[in-house]
Amino acid sequence: MSHDSFMSRAIELATNADLARDVNPVVGAVIVDASGAVVGEGWHNGSGTAHAEVMAITQAGAKAKGATLYCTLEPCNAQGKTGPCAQAIIIAGITKVVVGQRDPNQKMSGGSQTLIAAGIEVVDGVLTEQAKALNRSWNFAQEHNRPWVIWKTATTLDGYVAATDGTSKWITGEPARERVQELRASVGAIVTGTGTVLADDPLMTVRNFAEADQPLRIVVGDRELPKNAQIFSGTKPGVQLPGDLSEVISNLWKQQGVHRVLVEAGSHLSQSLWSADLVDEVYWFQAPVLLGAGKPAIGNFGVNTLANAPRFPDYQVDRVGLDLLVHFTTR
Amino acid sequence: MSHDSFMSRAIELATNADLARDVNPVVGAVIVDASGAVVGEGWHNGSGTAHAEVMAITQAGAKAKGATLYCTLEPCNAQGKTGPCAQAIIIAGITKVVVGQRDPNQKMSGGSQTLIAAGIEVVDGVLTEQAKALNRSWNFAQEHNRPWVIWKTATTLDGYVAATDGTSKWITGEPARERVQELRASVGAIVTGTGTVLADDPLMTVRNFAEADQPLRIVVGDRELPKNAQIFSGTKPGVQLPGDLSEVISNLWKQQGVHRVLVEAGSHLSQSLWSADLVDEVYWFQAPVLLGAGKPAIGNFGVNTLANAPRFPDYQVDRVGLDLLVHFTTR
Repeated sequence: MSHDSFMSRAIELATNADLARDVNPVVGAVIVDASGAVVGEGWHNGSGTAHAEVMAITQAGAKAKGATLYCTLEPCNAQGKTGPCAQAIIIAGITKVVVGQRDPNQKMSGGSQTLIAAGIEVVDGVLTEQAKALNRSWNFAQEHNRPWVIWKTATTLDGYVAATDGTSKWITGEPARERVQELRASVGAIVTGTGTVLADDPLMTVRNFAEADQPLRIVVGDRELPKNAQIFSGTKPGVQLPGDLSEVISNLWKQQGVHRVLVEAGSHLSQSLWSADLVDEVYWFQAPVLLGAGKPAIGNFGVNTLANAPRFPDYQVDRVGLDLLVHFTTR
Repeated sequence: MSHDSFMSRAIELATNADLARDVNPVVGAVIVDASGAVVGEGWHNGSGTAHAEVMAITQAGAKAKGATLYCTLEPCNAQGKTGPCAQAIIIAGITKVVVGQRDPNQKMSGGSQTLIAAGIEVVDGVLTEQAKALNRSWNFAQEHNRPWVIWKTATTLDGYVAATDGTSKWITGEPARERVQELRASVGAIVTGTGTVLADDPLMTVRNFAEADQPLRIVVGDRELPKNAQIFSGTKPGVQLPGDLSEVISNLWKQQGVHRVLVEAGSHLSQSLWSADLVDEVYWFQAPVLLGAGKPAIGNFGVNTLANAPRFPDYQVDRVGLDLLVHFTTR
């Protein structure tokens, strides 16, 4: 068995947990003894629970001594809610650590140096791309100091999100709206604008999710909203945040560790988002309907001439019910 | 061999000619003798040339006597540019005629009655749908007294045909523009507006077509245009027609026998076309580009509320190069 195959197993283990709404990344770990036998496996189940390395070390027990640890993410070096993994690895007597991706988190990194200083061999760069892909938005947030932002819209074929009289229910069909539920379930926070709350009074929760598991719900904008707006209902009610959209979004990461955000908003907020170049991924649902006039999906975000218009040739297109879904990342 | 198989052969023969830009329909004919042997085949090559029945009768010669004629369209009863086929059939001694579709053309129909009066057996309704499909737009024009209208647009993902500064070259890529060439080659006339001529000075011809074979080029609108506009070039120059769009389009059929028209126009003419419910088929090319603002594909054609918006769930979607093509008929 090679480094790659044990790291593949560690990557597989990492996906045991869905940490889309957790501040922590998913991590997997495998401990292999000198004979090549797997003696411990672990994964991280979210903030406050054991790190993957510790779970694997616990399972391996005495067999960890002299063994090799495969870990999708560089073991942490610092005391967080749980103890630093580097110390646990040293104490367990592991003699070699194979790392998928380096920890981009400044506070937690340095584990490799600690291990090397303790005489442990560290092998780096094994299946790094696959290991990084486990935590795409978390890595993005570490690097950019803001969450990965998904912008979703549902328009007619001619690009409108509502008719001239404001009607917008429903442009797309039930299967498209079901896909939006999946999208919501994949993020730590859902962001909308005061205009959408006033126009549609949306709940913006994930159906079938317990209240405690719901993504944060954020309304950006200064306009006064009715206290009984649905978005403010429940034991984990939505929060209205006035002020700068960029700030609100980056604070979701900086203050609450949200690394993946879904924006579902009307023209006004969408225009601000695009103007600030804050859209990282697009889900554009498109119904085979024509309005001729109405509210545009985005609004003027400063393109003005075709040469400046952003192009996304690497899009995917799928039918979702009777509608189309055009999906792409912008970077 | 059955009626269906001989009629299939007649349908196949009909497609030997491309009469998209001809006043006449495509027609195929097969003559079968008493032993079931095919003794004559024919098809119509366009206005002024022999009708399919006559070509088949000429080929069959004396063998037409006592034979059965399969004809995709009811034989004509009147003197047009060529003599009435009903008389030719009677003279040839054919004893049975099997018809695909009845002639919807008031001036030419009645052939069946003439044949029956002459003691010829007439069998009707064999592969009628397939026979009609040979001449969809021609049949439509006969029934509605105007041509079948194809409306084509090329927009960004957010529905704009030009940026706020008017730039529009090129939203879609070369493969999409190549498909537009195929579309142009399939119609009897191309209609545009004065706005498009002033903004883009298009030639609106079919590349690789001889000048004599080009579709008619029509500019609708009252605004004065430069005499050297490209659309007025060539030995078969475009024609500017002021006045009512519906009238211009229906006159293309009534006065010139054009049964299939392509409209390539900006918001203004497109809005008029949609307002008048004159769009029968849509080719919507969509580039993965965002403008946020600009010129809309259609403009307000009176929908106002979502419940009134036309829906086209039976659309097809294809990739054409890097662009999408959404294609549907509206009726």
